[in-house]
Amino acid sequence: MSKELIFGHSNPDTDAIVAAKAYSYLQNKLGYDTEAVALGEPNPETQFVLNYFDEATPRVISEASSEVDSVMLVDHNEAQQSVSDIDKLTVTHVIDHHRIDNFRTDLPLYYRAEPVGCTSTILTKMFDENKVEIPAQLAGLMLSAIVSDTLLLKSPTTTDDDKIAVKALAEIADIDVDKYGIEMLKAGTNTDAKSDQE
Amino acid sequence: MSKELIFGHSNPDTDAIVAAKAYSYLQNKLGYDTEAVALGEPNPETQFVLNYFDEATPRVISEASSEVDSVMLVDHNEAQQSVSDIDKLTVTHVIDHHRIDNFRTDLPLYYRAEPVGCTSTILTKMFDENKVEIPAQLAGLMLSAIVSDTLLLKSPTTTDDDKIAVKALAEIADIDVDKYGIEMLKAGTNTDAKSDQE
Ligand SMILES: [Mn+2]
Ligand SMILES: [Mn+2]
Ligand SMILES: [Mn+2]
Ligand SMILES: [Mn+2]
Repeated sequence: MSKELIFGHSNPDTDAIVAAKAYSYLQNKLGYDTEAVALGEPNPETQFVLNYFDEATPRVISEASSEVDSVMLVDHNEAQQSVSDIDKLTVTHVIDHHRIDNFRTDLPLYYRAEPVGCTSTILTKMFDENKVEIPAQLAGLMLSAIVSDTLLLKSPTTTDDDKIAVKALAEIADIDVDKYGIEMLKAGTNTDAKSDQE
Repeated sequence: MSKELIFGHSNPDTDAIVAAKAYSYLQNKLGYDTEAVALGEPNPETQFVLNYFDEATPRVISEASSEVDSVMLVDHNEAQQSVSDIDKLTVTHVIDHHRIDNFRTDLPLYYRAEPVGCTSTILTKMFDENKVEIPAQLAGLMLSAIVSDTLLLKSPTTTDDDKIAVKALAEIADIDVDKYGIEMLKAGTNTDAKSDQE
């Protein structure tokens, strides 16, 4: 099986960066050869999260077809939010929580979308379904993505699935969600540089 | 929750008819109010299957927006294969095993596609994941759909998931797959009327 890249949307938010890392970890455990990359530098909130959990900043790419034939998308599907040369690539997997638009394939693929608050919520379920344990550090990242997308489970897009995922991830990461979450959201609002993709 | 219709593609094959019935059964168990309908009369193979398992022929519709606001699609996603007034409807769920093309939504939705041989294979997994038992009669229908789409697990689109599903469904339905499958496939080839959508 040849290597595939996994990435979230351009102007990445915390979910776009984290969901790529989480899905790459899961897929590699399941036998795929993947690398999580990003379509832009982390915003201040995401950089706070990566620092907090001592996680490396992902490699930023501007095109993918020079290094791989196939890719997996997380946290987006619309071509205009994706890598610049998406038309030259085969999309084999998509994990997302947005509407579907301006997306097409030539071949059957794995596509999983659920109308929940965050891609990392879907991924939390997928680790469980595949009986793959989430490492504590990754659980912290995924919890951060859900807190970011749902504004501490307060946004109108928040579902029961998001709440259940945050509870499970907080236990694995041993995090006080409210205390950590407010610190994290403040890190993202301390500057004008915050991306506002979602 | 208001009622939704579930249907497969026009010119329905056995999977299009059966997957609608199976998904409607599952969704109703999970609390939805759905009715499985069809976008055309069953072909001779499908009629053989419905007769064999003493299952009612689904109601045929030509448009849906006069009776519901929302629909769930199985075994297709492309607008030109769907109900005539698909643009006036909200698609809330899709279960499919084809490429994605000419499909878009305004809102987030539940979309599950896997590159396997048959929609009924995905549905077999979903019953298991949701811990809903498949009645023997429905298992016979779902097995028939997989046998139909994969030509008795011999087509190049056949995956391990299809084989696992057929084995599980054959046990529930208490069916000799090879013997029954050949009889079923013959029923479909005894006439020129067989649809050839896939
Ligand atoms: Mn995002
Ligand atoms: Mn997101
Ligand atoms: Mn079909
Ligand atoms: Mn099919």
